[in-house]
Amino acid sequence: MRLDLAQEVGALTARLVDIESVSGDEKALADAIEEALLPLGHLTVRRVGHNIVARTELGRAERIVIAGHIDTVPVAGNLPSRVADGVLHGCGSSDMKSGVAVQLKLSLLENPNRDLTFVFYECEEIEAERNGLLRLTREHPDWLAGDLAVVMEPTDGLIEGGCQGTLRVEVVARGVRAHSARSWEGVNAIHAIKPIIDVLDRYEPRRPVVDGLEYHEGLNAVAVRGGVAGNVVPDECVVTVNYRFAPDRTLDEALDHVREVFDGFEVRLTDGAPGARPGLTHPVAAAFAAALGGVPRAKLGWTDVARFSALGIPAVNCGPGDPNLAHTSGEHVGLAKIEECERRMVGWLTG
Amino acid sequence: MRLDLAQEVGALTARLVDIESVSGDEKALADAIEEALLPLGHLTVRRVGHNIVARTELGRAERIVIAGHIDTVPVAGNLPSRVADGVLHGCGSSDMKSGVAVQLKLSLLENPNRDLTFVFYECEEIEAERNGLLRLTREHPDWLAGDLAVVMEPTDGLIEGGCQGTLRVEVVARGVRAHSARSWEGVNAIHAIKPIIDVLDRYEPRRPVVDGLEYHEGLNAVAVRGGVAGNVVPDECVVTVNYRFAPDRTLDEALDHVREVFDGFEVRLTDGAPGARPGLTHPVAAAFAAALGGVPRAKLGWTDVARFSALGIPAVNCGPGDPNLAHTSGEHVGLAKIEECERRMVGWLTG
Repeated sequence: MRLDLAQEVGALTARLVDIESVSGDEKALADAIEEALLPLGHLTVRRVGHNIVARTELGRAERIVIAGHIDTVPVAGNLPSRVADGVLHGCGSSDMKSGVAVQLKLSLLENPNRDLTFVFYECEEIEAERNGLLRLTREHPDWLAGDLAVVMEPTDGLIEGGCQGTLRVEVVARGVRAHSARSWEGVNAIHAIKPIIDVLDRYEPRRPVVDGLEYHEGLNAVAVRGGVAGNVVPDECVVTVNYRFAPDRTLDEALDHVREVFDGFEVRLTDGAPGARPGLTHPVAAAFAAALGGVPRAKLGWTDVARFSALGIPAVNCGPGDPNLAHTSGEHVGLAKIEECERRMVGWLTG
Repeated sequence: MRLDLAQEVGALTARLVDIESVSGDEKALADAIEEALLPLGHLTVRRVGHNIVARTELGRAERIVIAGHIDTVPVAGNLPSRVADGVLHGCGSSDMKSGVAVQLKLSLLENPNRDLTFVFYECEEIEAERNGLLRLTREHPDWLAGDLAVVMEPTDGLIEGGCQGTLRVEVVARGVRAHSARSWEGVNAIHAIKPIIDVLDRYEPRRPVVDGLEYHEGLNAVAVRGGVAGNVVPDECVVTVNYRFAPDRTLDEALDHVREVFDGFEVRLTDGAPGARPGLTHPVAAAFAAALGGVPRAKLGWTDVARFSALGIPAVNCGPGDPNLAHTSGEHVGLAKIEECERRMVGWLTG
C-alpha cells in the first residue's frame, strides 16, 4: 500500500480512509506514511511503535508541531470510503484522516517559514495507557519540542483553544442486603442513590472565561450499577460521575470540588486527566490565530492538546473535520473544508 | 464417596455438606445418594440427570412426597464443615442439606404408615430452566404423584404454608445520548429513574390473609444498570423490579398490578412464577400440621412447593434449617434442630 502525496488533499484523505486502521491495528497505515515520508530529503524521520515523527531542521526561529492520530474507532459498515456531492464519507474521514492528509500535504513544504515537526501517532481512541502521543511524551519528549502545537482533531476548521479536563468518580450508596421476599429486613441501596441524582439535577455548571475563551463545565452520571441477584435487595449501588472541568482548575482542585459536591458519600476516583489552558495569549499562538482567521472558541472535549500543555508547549486544536460527527457511522467531511484548511495552513507557513 | 445412612442425622448432614455440590456440579452427591438408596429393598429408585426419586410401594391409603434439592449456592470459604457448641457450620448446612439428611434417615423406614416418595433434585439455586424438580414435573409427573408434598427447605422446623409468587420486570427510563463534554445536548436517562425510585419508596405492600395465613408482599428494585461509555450521557437506564405477591393473586394479576404501578414507563416482564396457596385446610395437610405441632405461618419466599401446587398436590415447607441464614457465608444449623425435625417426622410417619 503506497501513498501518493502528490494527490489532491481530498483524494489523499480517501486513500487514508481506505487503509483501515482501527486502534491497535495501525501498522499498515503507519508503514505507508513512513514510506511516503522517508524519500523527502528535507525531513528527518523517526519511528517508535506505530508513531512517526518527521522534522525539518532549517534553523528557523520558531518550531511548530503538527500532530494527528492515525487510528479510528471501529468500522461501522462505513468502509470503503465514497464521495457524493463533494462530501467524503467513511470511517475516520472526519476524525481525523482529513487532518492527517493535511499534515502529509504540509510535509511536502521544503522551505517553510517555521521549522515543522509532524507527529503521526497510534491508539488515541482507546485507553490512555496505549496512546502513542503519551508514549512519545514519556520516551522521546525531545522529539516533540516546539513553540506551538497544532493538533488537527476535527474543529470545523476553527481554532479551538486548550481543552477541558475530565475525571470520573464512583459515588457509592450503601444499604443492607436482604432476601427480596423479606425486603423489610434490608435497606435498598438502589433507593439510596436518589440524593446522588438530586445533586446532579440541581448542579449548576460553571462557564468560566479562561485566557479569553468561555468554557462550559458539566457534571453527569455516565453509568449506574447495582444488584446482587434477582432475589436480593442490594447493599451497594454505584453511580459513575464524569466531571468535565474548565482549565482554570487543576485535576486536584476538580477532585476536591467533586468530593465537596458529594459530601457524605463515599467518592472513589477512577481516572482523570487535567485540561489545557487555551494559551492563545502566547505570541506564537496569537500569530497562528490571526493567520487562520475565524473566532477561536474553547475546546470542551478533552484532547491530546493537554499532553503538549503538560510539556509546557502551548497547543490548539484545528482540523477540517466536524467534531459532532466523530464516532458516528455517518461520519463524513466536505472536500472543500479539507482544501480550505490546507490552504490556510500553507498560507501561514509560507507567507 | 459413600454415605452411611446409619450415622446420626447430624453427622450425616456434615457428611453431605462436605460433598461439595454447587448448582451444576451435583454428580458426586447424586451418585452417593443413589448408591446409598439402591440397596434398600423397600424402595424403587429411579434417576434422571442428577435427580433421584425413591418410592415405597406398600399400597397405603395416602402417599407423601418428601422433597429436597441437593445443590447449594457457591462455596464462600465455608467448607469443610465444622461443628462447634452443637452447631454445624458450612455451605448448605441450613439450605438444605440438613433437610436432605432427614429425608435420607426417613428413607430407612421399612414400614411407614403412609407410602413415601423421596425426591432429591438438582439446580434449585439457579435459573428455573435447569431446576431438576421442574424437569421431573415435565418428564415424569407420575413419579411425583401424591396426596401431600413436604419440601424440606429451611423453616426452623415450623410448617410454612404455600408460598408467595414472584415476578421480575425491567422498568425502562429513556433519555437522549450525548457526549458528556457537551452534556446539555442530551437528556440523562440515569436522572430519569428518580420517579421509578419514588414509586418504590412510596409503595405500600399488601399483607393479605389467605387460607388463614398472613402473607407480606414486597416491591423492590433488585438491579439497576445504565451507561454506554465513560464519556457518554446514557440514553437508557433499566431498573429491575422484583414483585413478591401473595398467593391470592395469579401471575397475570400480579403483572397487571405492576404495570399499573409503573404506568407511563415501559415495563418488560423478564420472568415470573405463581405462588401456591397454603392448602392447610386440606385434611392430609391438616393432619401433618397437627402431628408436627407449632403454629403454621405463611411462606414468603418462593419455593418449589409451587411446582407441586401446579400439579394439584397440596404442599408445605418444613425443614430444620434457618431460612434467614440461607445463602450467607455464616450459614449453620443446630444439631438439636435436625434431630428434632427427624423425630417429629418419624413420629408422624410411624405413629
